[in-house]
Amino acid sequence: MMNGKKQDQTGENGTNPNPPSSETVINLDHGDPTAFETYWRKVGERSAITITGDQSLSYFSNLKSLCWFLEPKLEEEIRRLHEVVGNAKVDDHYIIVGAGSSQLIQAALYAVSPFDHPEPISVVSAAPYYSSYQEVADLMKSGLYKWGGDANSFEKDGPYIEMVTSPNNPSGEMREQVVNRPQGKTIYDLAYYWPQYTPITSKLDHDIMLFTLSKCTGHAGSRIGWALVRDKDVARKMVNFLVISTIGVSKESQLRAAKILGIISDSCQDHDKSSELENFFEYGQHLMAKRWEKLREVVESNELFSLPNYPSKYCLFTKHVAEAHPAFAWMSCNSDVEDCEIVLRGQKILARGGRRFGSDTKYVRVSMLSREQEFNLFLQRLSAIQGNFTREN
Amino acid sequence: MMNGKKQDQTGENGTNPNPPSSETVINLDHGDPTAFETYWRKVGERSAITITGDQSLSYFSNLKSLCWFLEPKLEEEIRRLHEVVGNAKVDDHYIIVGAGSSQLIQAALYAVSPFDHPEPISVVSAAPYYSSYQEVADLMKSGLYKWGGDANSFEKDGPYIEMVTSPNNPSGEMREQVVNRPQGKTIYDLAYYWPQYTPITSKLDHDIMLFTLSKCTGHAGSRIGWALVRDKDVARKMVNFLVISTIGVSKESQLRAAKILGIISDSCQDHDKSSELENFFEYGQHLMAKRWEKLREVVESNELFSLPNYPSKYCLFTKHVAEAHPAFAWMSCNSDVEDCEIVLRGQKILARGGRRFGSDTKYVRVSMLSREQEFNLFLQRLSAIQGNFTREN
Repeated sequence: MMNGKKQDQTGENGTNPNPPSSETVINLDHGDPTAFETYWRKVGERSAITITGDQSLSYFSNLKSLCWFLEPKLEEEIRRLHEVVGNAKVDDHYIIVGAGSSQLIQAALYAVSPFDHPEPISVVSAAPYYSSYQEVADLMKSGLYKWGGDANSFEKDGPYIEMVTSPNNPSGEMREQVVNRPQGKTIYDLAYYWPQYTPITSKLDHDIMLFTLSKCTGHAGSRIGWALVRDKDVARKMVNFLVISTIGVSKESQLRAAKILGIISDSCQDHDKSSELENFFEYGQHLMAKRWEKLREVVESNELFSLPNYPSKYCLFTKHVAEAHPAFAWMSCNSDVEDCEIVLRGQKILARGGRRFGSDTKYVRVSMLSREQEFNLFLQRLSAIQGNFTREN
Repeated sequence: MMNGKKQDQTGENGTNPNPPSSETVINLDHGDPTAFETYWRKVGERSAITITGDQSLSYFSNLKSLCWFLEPKLEEEIRRLHEVVGNAKVDDHYIIVGAGSSQLIQAALYAVSPFDHPEPISVVSAAPYYSSYQEVADLMKSGLYKWGGDANSFEKDGPYIEMVTSPNNPSGEMREQVVNRPQGKTIYDLAYYWPQYTPITSKLDHDIMLFTLSKCTGHAGSRIGWALVRDKDVARKMVNFLVISTIGVSKESQLRAAKILGIISDSCQDHDKSSELENFFEYGQHLMAKRWEKLREVVESNELFSLPNYPSKYCLFTKHVAEAHPAFAWMSCNSDVEDCEIVLRGQKILARGGRRFGSDTKYVRVSMLSREQEFNLFLQRLSAIQGNFTREN
């Protein structure tokens, strides 16, 4: 996955000690959300935390809570942020913290799978679907569940689990469940349901909803995700999974996530301009809109690729009509191109090919969340492809 | 597991805002290592870390490393500490970080299991064995491996995995593998192979060795463990497992672990008394020795229980002859008592019964790593049992 390639790193003073050169491979395969570093650099000291050596030695955070390893301050800030943004109902849901939403996907699959079923039940998702679902579902050759492929063509009787990613990864559109059969359980992966990516059109209220710090604030390195879970038994089973697999979740990451989420809520509620805390989601939305505008320009002037269009909708958070600006560009190639991923690789751009998402090689997923220098280099190389491609073929 | 009981918490100023009373349930079921808080409180500022909001957003820590999510500073401090203590060879091993050794046990099981074997292979360990092995092995009803029970009675042909815990959890003695059949793989869980628990008698050099910050320094809340792995393919498979299950490990925890391990190495090497950094392992060894001495006194004056004895050995680290002072007391009851765990619970002491470890109800595992107040209350209640027990029966 890493191919041993060197990635650029931002130095302590905010400059890039290894600016990408024409030889640098740009890795846009992962959705590594370093685009938001610039915001946090501006916030500065206010977003720093200090942890002393004698703090948080214990496994336990709050013995009164069903999720006893969840830091109370993090729970408070998660509830507050959902209230501020209005993207999900939190009143009658348990909050469960995990090591990113990856771990919570597994915890949720475990919790809703019947333990005594004679064979593993199917985990499905409508194509194009997030490539990790298949990897996660098949990792352990589990007797509880296994990957069942595209939800659109799923027709088996009996219990199953549908993963609904909304906005979708890789393709960015809002989604609902598609199977709707008896004995089905649905897990909503809402990693990208934040105002910088898509208009917030309703306060969602599903049984199991997953979120992650990574895509919300950019702090992927912290490995913090959370689940909002309505049913107590499901919540308890998820906690059991998290206890057996990792005995809870890093306290340092939880404390920092609480701080970071608190700043974001402050930035939305802070109407005192003297504090100079810019609204995080407005900042993010401008950044994403600008990148999408630039990308669409390049793609239009270059007849090799095309991009999805997103309808304009009224956002309950920003109070404006806007279109989506997803975290990934789900690019498709015109009919002359066999494999979109290979074409990009020829320009030293690593992206994830369509097959990984249950689609075909005509598609490729490109992260829109890299640092600015890499994003610009990506555009530059993309502009150069037509000539190059024609020349090579 | 938590029983909704309230645990005492240490306040910011180092005092205990909720000192345990006669009504307080003392939870000595987990090996929650809060005993070492006192050391870190003394170290003070020097062990604190500050993380700014714009730090460590990326998933990636070091693209040149096979374990690309491992912070270079943590790798450096892990290697340094093993050199200082002399408990394990690190020269020709890869270092892989995980969310505690729990996650690394799963990564190791995954990595050494043949993927195409017709049925799950057996995971065995000599009884009494660490209760989590069975839970972890059977969690996902995996087709790769399943729990196979006591290694002493294992006689199946074909591939298998033996977990060797040394010093053993729950019983504290040093161990070697017991099965020794062809096609076996051995995973050494060395969580307790540190000088505060046992004399360091040799520099171990196994193919897969697991350690955890939790038992080394007391920072259980950080969920940091590491594996020393000789074989590159096994290391790569473990990394794949960690990527699919949690996309790496908290950067905050890694950075703090690097700081904490650095302090410990400094404390061992620092011969300048003016720095007032007390040797961590000597501190820990004195603390454990004192607790064991007190426990043995109570147990001897009370004819209900007995404790294992540990041979005195020369410790290469302290350069002294000493006996082991394990992190758990593996207590057995005399013939009149049916269930040791229930007897303790009658005194509001939660501990883990022998059956969970492949032993019987005559045994119980009690954590020796609680805070001082709880430990003293445990001794007090243990002293009171005989009268109580006789009266109730």
